[in-house]
Amino acid sequence: MVDSRVEMQIDFARLRERLDALGAVGGRPDGGNSRLALSDADREGRDLVVLWMRDLGLEVGVDRIGNIVARQPWSDDTAPVMTGSHVDTVRAGGRYDGNYGVLAGLEVLTTVIERGVELARPLAVGVFTNEEGARFPPDMMGSLVYAGGLPVEEALATLGVDGAAVGDELERIGYAGPLPCPGPPPHAFVELHIEQGPVLEHHGVTIGAVEGVQGISWQELVLTGEPNHAGTTPMSLRHDAGYLAAAVAVTAREIAAEMGGDQVATVGSMRFDPDIINVIAGEVHLTVDLRNTDEERLRQAESRLVARVADLAAEEGCGVGWRRLARFEPVAFDSEVVGLVERTGTRLGHPVRRLSSGAGHDAQMMARLCKTGMIFVPSHRGISHNPAEHTEDADLAAGADVLLHTVVALADERA
Amino acid sequence: MVDSRVEMQIDFARLRERLDALGAVGGRPDGGNSRLALSDADREGRDLVVLWMRDLGLEVGVDRIGNIVARQPWSDDTAPVMTGSHVDTVRAGGRYDGNYGVLAGLEVLTTVIERGVELARPLAVGVFTNEEGARFPPDMMGSLVYAGGLPVEEALATLGVDGAAVGDELERIGYAGPLPCPGPPPHAFVELHIEQGPVLEHHGVTIGAVEGVQGISWQELVLTGEPNHAGTTPMSLRHDAGYLAAAVAVTAREIAAEMGGDQVATVGSMRFDPDIINVIAGEVHLTVDLRNTDEERLRQAESRLVARVADLAAEEGCGVGWRRLARFEPVAFDSEVVGLVERTGTRLGHPVRRLSSGAGHDAQMMARLCKTGMIFVPSHRGISHNPAEHTEDADLAAGADVLLHTVVALADERA
Repeated sequence: MVDSRVEMQIDFARLRERLDALGAVGGRPDGGNSRLALSDADREGRDLVVLWMRDLGLEVGVDRIGNIVARQPWSDDTAPVMTGSHVDTVRAGGRYDGNYGVLAGLEVLTTVIERGVELARPLAVGVFTNEEGARFPPDMMGSLVYAGGLPVEEALATLGVDGAAVGDELERIGYAGPLPCPGPPPHAFVELHIEQGPVLEHHGVTIGAVEGVQGISWQELVLTGEPNHAGTTPMSLRHDAGYLAAAVAVTAREIAAEMGGDQVATVGSMRFDPDIINVIAGEVHLTVDLRNTDEERLRQAESRLVARVADLAAEEGCGVGWRRLARFEPVAFDSEVVGLVERTGTRLGHPVRRLSSGAGHDAQMMARLCKTGMIFVPSHRGISHNPAEHTEDADLAAGADVLLHTVVALADERA
Repeated sequence: MVDSRVEMQIDFARLRERLDALGAVGGRPDGGNSRLALSDADREGRDLVVLWMRDLGLEVGVDRIGNIVARQPWSDDTAPVMTGSHVDTVRAGGRYDGNYGVLAGLEVLTTVIERGVELARPLAVGVFTNEEGARFPPDMMGSLVYAGGLPVEEALATLGVDGAAVGDELERIGYAGPLPCPGPPPHAFVELHIEQGPVLEHHGVTIGAVEGVQGISWQELVLTGEPNHAGTTPMSLRHDAGYLAAAVAVTAREIAAEMGGDQVATVGSMRFDPDIINVIAGEVHLTVDLRNTDEERLRQAESRLVARVADLAAEEGCGVGWRRLARFEPVAFDSEVVGLVERTGTRLGHPVRRLSSGAGHDAQMMARLCKTGMIFVPSHRGISHNPAEHTEDADLAAGADVLLHTVVALADERA
């Protein structure tokens, strides 16, 4: 029996077909996907996935925040091994982010059920509401509510960028379910996802065994100088918010270099005012995104940044205002699950690499409830949240097979 | 006779009244002025000034590009000593930039005529068309055409930011005059202007004897990197156009510091794309404004910038495109006129400082035709091209008195 399971593979043709069918819902002419959370397109995407779930004979439940959990029928309430992800996208996203994890999860259940594989625990696949946060902040809303990290009433009252409320939109699209939040803890949770970064491709590796999710520190700085004439103001009399902004961005890069490891630092947004060629900038808004897998080191990066910006601003005679936009501590995945993913990938003949996730995922919320891990497959050129997002079919198939054997191993666990 | 001239002063109450009356045309609620070149407000402003010129008995001529030159009636064609400036403003400008030079010039002629002062040469005051260039590029258009630096046909065909042509708009507002361009060379030209910079105020000085106008080099850089996820892309795999832009701005500042003297360098405009907190910038447009009074040193600054940007871009693995937006060589004013302004200011009891102009002025075009100089008065906090532009009344009066005695001295010259 064990040997036959090693040979077991998902049906990639079927997975490919479903990826294409779901990708056609809210599909864009450029090959991308647009299914903002709780939009009509999101409803259509959900309906399609639920149809497939029911066709497979799964028990489909929807909770108050709209999370869909489909599980194998079971004689008792044994905690399932759960996989899944999300089907909402950013406004102009790709076809794999989230969708791949849901449909590969469904493919895993389909394979196990069709083959009549007997397991100690049922399998379940979840579709979490509003993972992207592109319409309703914060992101990973559904899994956060499922895990008890955000009261459901608060989530339902959230207003979107278009002024609509989550609760109203859930009602409107028919996904305001009856099941309570937080949801029941699974035995384990494993999420399969595209990397959304260049590391696996760069190293020629097919499978990423994800050790955890980086902690995130997002801050906005407002730098205030004096808008003066670029020709008539001597260098010594300048209070140039534009120069200060540039110096801050260079400092952020230096901090990442000094700290090394997986510390990253990005100034992705910078807005000059008045933004005119011959006027010294009087005000600049910029953002700093710092991430580290280690909370202590992330705090170090933050405090270095604060100290150096203060020095730079004093030198330039400018003011600095700070606003914290987001702050999440790093999440470490279960070492047993990480090891299992790594061994499974290797056993199936794929090059494997441990890495941490720089992006947020539903799995980091589920890690509050049960032992959790993630599997990554390569993203071509690291591109994501973009219609150009791409992963090779062979990698998509490999990831789904690793997911299959990982959840099967976990579902063999009795304790 | 000479002694009585030393005592001679302009009538500041009258000048103040005229500044306020002209400031009310196209006046803004915030105290600023909006009289874009060849707009209805520009026509109203011109009409008012021409009315005052005619009231004084001056001979008023308008040339094909709309420059207005008013001169004392004279028995022969002796070349006049000319002063003047412009009355157009930027979209939201102040009340003194240009207007002060025209009205103080008119005040000087009024004073000389009312007192019956006999001079060897007539005085003239000019109003040059479209000095600001805010509606129709390039700036200093009228004086450039007057001095023969731009064919009048070409200037008349210029299209504005609103699609209108200079020639049509001149006809429309009634200032398409019959006099030929280039215009007749005066004996000398002296322009009085607010500094538009902080140097005089910073040094507590009332009168600036302007030695010349800085050369200007304007360039736009388009930096091309790879837009990737700020969390998932390791520092070593980044091609961050935003970081490169910041490094370029810091380098521009360093070049100015190394070169010293009056070299200035400004990155006033920077636009990130996609300009999102968690996406590494894929493309940045930025401008670099370099100025120096010495052409050779300005060229050095330009070549240092090109070399260092190439190195920085290669390190970051980014592309760089350069586009030259403007390039003017420095202009040196006539040393005799500069010395005369300096001595005159001192003789009238004002603290005087030599300095160069960082902004462009009509005088730099007239310097092609005749010996030329400029007089500056302080600008509060260096602010200009802004409704907050301000100069104290005492400084406005001092500048007009220095202009009076400077042009009188030049108009006493027979050769």
